[in-house]
Amino acid sequence: MTATNQLWRLARYPEGLPTTEDLVFEEGPLAPLGEGEVRIRICYISIDPANRLWIRPEGSYIPPFPLGSVMPAACIGVVHESSHPRYQPGDWVQGIWGWQDFVTLPGGPEDRQLPMEEGGILHLPEPPPGSDYLDFFGLFGVHGLTAFFGMTDVGKVKPGDTVLISAAAGAIGSLATQIARNLGCRVVGLAGGPEKCAKVVEQFGADACIDYKSDDIREKLSVLAPNGVDVYFDNVGGEILEAAIDNMAHHGRIVFCGAISQYNDSDARGPANYMKLLYKQIELKGFLVFTYMDRMEEAVETLAGWKASGELHMELEVRYGIDNCLGAFHSLFDGSNRGKLVMCLNESGEP
Amino acid sequence: MTATNQLWRLARYPEGLPTTEDLVFEEGPLAPLGEGEVRIRICYISIDPANRLWIRPEGSYIPPFPLGSVMPAACIGVVHESSHPRYQPGDWVQGIWGWQDFVTLPGGPEDRQLPMEEGGILHLPEPPPGSDYLDFFGLFGVHGLTAFFGMTDVGKVKPGDTVLISAAAGAIGSLATQIARNLGCRVVGLAGGPEKCAKVVEQFGADACIDYKSDDIREKLSVLAPNGVDVYFDNVGGEILEAAIDNMAHHGRIVFCGAISQYNDSDARGPANYMKLLYKQIELKGFLVFTYMDRMEEAVETLAGWKASGELHMELEVRYGIDNCLGAFHSLFDGSNRGKLVMCLNESGEP
Repeated sequence: MTATNQLWRLARYPEGLPTTEDLVFEEGPLAPLGEGEVRIRICYISIDPANRLWIRPEGSYIPPFPLGSVMPAACIGVVHESSHPRYQPGDWVQGIWGWQDFVTLPGGPEDRQLPMEEGGILHLPEPPPGSDYLDFFGLFGVHGLTAFFGMTDVGKVKPGDTVLISAAAGAIGSLATQIARNLGCRVVGLAGGPEKCAKVVEQFGADACIDYKSDDIREKLSVLAPNGVDVYFDNVGGEILEAAIDNMAHHGRIVFCGAISQYNDSDARGPANYMKLLYKQIELKGFLVFTYMDRMEEAVETLAGWKASGELHMELEVRYGIDNCLGAFHSLFDGSNRGKLVMCLNESGEP
Repeated sequence: MTATNQLWRLARYPEGLPTTEDLVFEEGPLAPLGEGEVRIRICYISIDPANRLWIRPEGSYIPPFPLGSVMPAACIGVVHESSHPRYQPGDWVQGIWGWQDFVTLPGGPEDRQLPMEEGGILHLPEPPPGSDYLDFFGLFGVHGLTAFFGMTDVGKVKPGDTVLISAAAGAIGSLATQIARNLGCRVVGLAGGPEKCAKVVEQFGADACIDYKSDDIREKLSVLAPNGVDVYFDNVGGEILEAAIDNMAHHGRIVFCGAISQYNDSDARGPANYMKLLYKQIELKGFLVFTYMDRMEEAVETLAGWKASGELHMELEVRYGIDNCLGAFHSLFDGSNRGKLVMCLNESGEP
């Protein structure tokens, strides 16, 4: 049995991008397992923009994680040791356990239903044929459900709608792009750089992709969406949101899924052209996937069908080593990641 | 027949509150009536915050009125002279004719359906018993329909909802307050000064009213809406919107009806706490009453019923004289008006 744990501890709430003074890498011994406890070896850590919101001292959609916590993140792991009857060594489980090798938790009388709950442990089912456990992070997890319900329930897309998607090469955006296309929409993506833009069109099936780093977004949109954007699926906020609002159709819908441009900024702000939401009678709706957790099966059935028919895939960028978590996290904010970021804690690449 | 017309001409697009250099008062002769033309003597001019949006050079929900136009506003008048068979002297009509004594227009083959259309002439029906022509500005006009559909269709209020209404002593806000109360909601108003606040509670039936000039809005709201605001009917934008967002319930709705605090400001901005729309999964929807014009009868039936039973009334502040239009308009923005503002162009107070 491993006697040490490596982890990243939240020592200070970051201003802007977290540094090694905010998140401190530590190594320490593991205490012997207590009565009724479970020790999980973490195999995969999901590196997501939303994690940044969880360590804002003013809170976000959840209260801030307290100083001294392990840097929080969604994880998938295998039960390593257990003195609780519900958990057997080798069981696959998920939860919000953070950037560390091992987590040790009291086993509850039943699986907790909310993976967002701190300390919760949820057993994973067998992956559907052709899928693996990592798909529970992406396609069948919060990313897939966010893209699916954001597009259908919040955005209320109809065949023929012109749909604009920011961060279209990203984890959620790439799924949203494929889902909108599968639902018969005309899809325009937004991504940074020619490589990502090519991928959005060629791999994810958008009709066009605007390079926000080099294109004039408003000019491009006026050509690509001459009758206006019916649905804007927003992951970024800021100036790109403003350009989208300028090009929305009357009675358009904005799916407010995220605003990564604002996450490191304590001085976040709403769009300067806010008045146009009135002029064009636009509906803007914030949503969190947790609202839809009880409709998970409905989404997974459709998503798994598309996966099986080759109409939906999720690109993963797997990196290795617990010590590389912070660098991986930074790459989300400078746009250098390629696909959904996952840390794999076994250097061999196997769980 | 009167040989002269007095009017206010848009000489320059205002920055901030319009001055007499932006809107110039003029008097000039009336040309003889041409073939097929109608001359209308304007009896009442509706003085509304939205008029300010119509003279923003960048446009709003309509293109800007061109320089040289008469200052635009909704009017009710009586046909004075006509050489068109559809219009007889003495007919009551309405349209967007602006701040002037007389308007002379070509008569069309039929009434135009959109009163927003420049140059349109719409015949008015007989007012319902107990009502008069002025009610077509207020209760049965854009104000009543805005409050009604804003509260029902956009805000989707349910009995028991906590509803917050800004400018609750104003033309639309006072109607929205009464409508929400009539629909079984708990209503909290926002108004400036003790006199207006008393009116919102005593005359319009709100459960409470916050004085935004002297109260700490956030503190008051935390007491008056301890479980959060379900529906915020916003007429003002700016800091009051931000305070409302801070106190919204999860899954709350914001009815974006107007943002008077921003109308004189070319540097308008969205709420600084925009991110909370995501965290609390709030729906914010801009709407214009013109979208609902084809459902006018549905609203008027309900509104007239409430008026007849004494559950709905509209306070009018009638001022006199075409030369006082600009002063009346200013009072909308410094909060000194009392009720919906109407200019009556006959000093006797009779049409």
